[in-house]
Amino acid sequence: MAVERNFRLDVEYDGEPFHGWQRQKDRRSVQGEIEAALAQMIGGPVTLIGSGRTDAGVHALGQVAGFRSTTRLGADVLQRGLNSLLPAGIVVRACREVDPAFHARYDVRAKTYRYRILNRRVPAAIGRQYAWHIRRPLDVAAMRSALTAVIGTHDFKSFEAAGSPRTHTVRRILRAEVTIEPEAIRAVELTGDGFLRGMVRNIVGTLVEVGLGKRSPDQMAAVLAARDRRRAGATAPAHGLFLMAVDYFEPDEEL
Amino acid sequence: MAVERNFRLDVEYDGEPFHGWQRQKDRRSVQGEIEAALAQMIGGPVTLIGSGRTDAGVHALGQVAGFRSTTRLGADVLQRGLNSLLPAGIVVRACREVDPAFHARYDVRAKTYRYRILNRRVPAAIGRQYAWHIRRPLDVAAMRSALTAVIGTHDFKSFEAAGSPRTHTVRRILRAEVTIEPEAIRAVELTGDGFLRGMVRNIVGTLVEVGLGKRSPDQMAAVLAARDRRRAGATAPAHGLFLMAVDYFEPDEEL
Repeated sequence: MAVERNFRLDVEYDGEPFHGWQRQKDRRSVQGEIEAALAQMIGGPVTLIGSGRTDAGVHALGQVAGFRSTTRLGADVLQRGLNSLLPAGIVVRACREVDPAFHARYDVRAKTYRYRILNRRVPAAIGRQYAWHIRRPLDVAAMRSALTAVIGTHDFKSFEAAGSPRTHTVRRILRAEVTIEPEAIRAVELTGDGFLRGMVRNIVGTLVEVGLGKRSPDQMAAVLAARDRRRAGATAPAHGLFLMAVDYFEPDEEL
Repeated sequence: MAVERNFRLDVEYDGEPFHGWQRQKDRRSVQGEIEAALAQMIGGPVTLIGSGRTDAGVHALGQVAGFRSTTRLGADVLQRGLNSLLPAGIVVRACREVDPAFHARYDVRAKTYRYRILNRRVPAAIGRQYAWHIRRPLDVAAMRSALTAVIGTHDFKSFEAAGSPRTHTVRRILRAEVTIEPEAIRAVELTGDGFLRGMVRNIVGTLVEVGLGKRSPDQMAAVLAARDRRRAGATAPAHGLFLMAVDYFEPDEEL
């Protein structure tokens, strides 16, 4: 009998041409495109398991996914084949055979997201697809002060997208930073053990209101405590958001 | 009688959605889009003069253009109006009223172009629109050595695009560099008093053949001396090229 092998893919994609990560009927999705390319190479249906979904328009530099297959193709051959079959906008950065126990969703230890803001008077033509343009100057110090409120373990219900309620809305944010980068870019980077749907974009939307002086920095803690979506700011647009990295537990690591 | 005023625009654009700078019948061009937006604001036809053309697919961070008009609108109002009327992919970075003698094409002293190469095994999904992907490692030292041959005043006929012969093919290159940048980017930057059609892309195409070991660095001088397009390498694709800056003579400056 053919031996089943377990593969891990590290995937970079541009959110714009696709309707999010998750496979959809009649719409191009990242998962759907990779599954179709794998099926073509392997000669049979393949189910790809992502570390989690990303919404339509959200980009990824470090999405991780896994699949099991009895294929005899080597990881290197699979990677090269995928990159030649996949449409522009999806690239397999790495493909390797991993421990049979590895599961791309269940074994996630932490994810890092980065939200890019172009903060200058005029918008950008080059790279406009990859940052939210905010015309008025942002008070980065105020944003940094506000952002400290989200570090640690909290109920993030206030920052959950409407229409997708989870029973368990407590998450742990390990790191939260606002950085000043070249070319008028401000970046908000969050690392957490998990994120609710829309959570990063809702935190950033609220944070930008702080940066614009529409809210005081200490409101962040109040919004969190309220556990009420209506207290948070507007959702930041998808095209500024990048899934940067997914970290996994080692097999012998304790939770 | 209304006074004619002279305006200068500094323009950033993405080459992908447009068929080059120059106005064309039935095709979207950067010049055509800006002229249409100006006409709409000013209420009559406007002729925009660019520092020079850029080919289809070539980007610009610092294109310069000028137009004359009797409009009473202020430069600031014009800029804001243009940026709200223009399609995504064209941004007016600056608009100001300038000396009546300023001419965006005739007064050019130098232009700077930058060519971006992504040099790693796998292509990019994010930013793939803005760099030429070269899979095999480039020998940057060899490229630097070859590139010194173009510095100074030379007949660049070997690097002129086919089908667009100029009588005068001598140009002066003031600066030529290959830089190593983060994220596996190599950039070739050229400053010159003028460029023939296709010249940067043909120099870069030849230079990449040097970087890949297909030619020795000293061939660059031989190709130049031959004054024969067939001696140069393949033309590098348009989407890696950026017009970065246009420098002008001051009114009181000698040539």
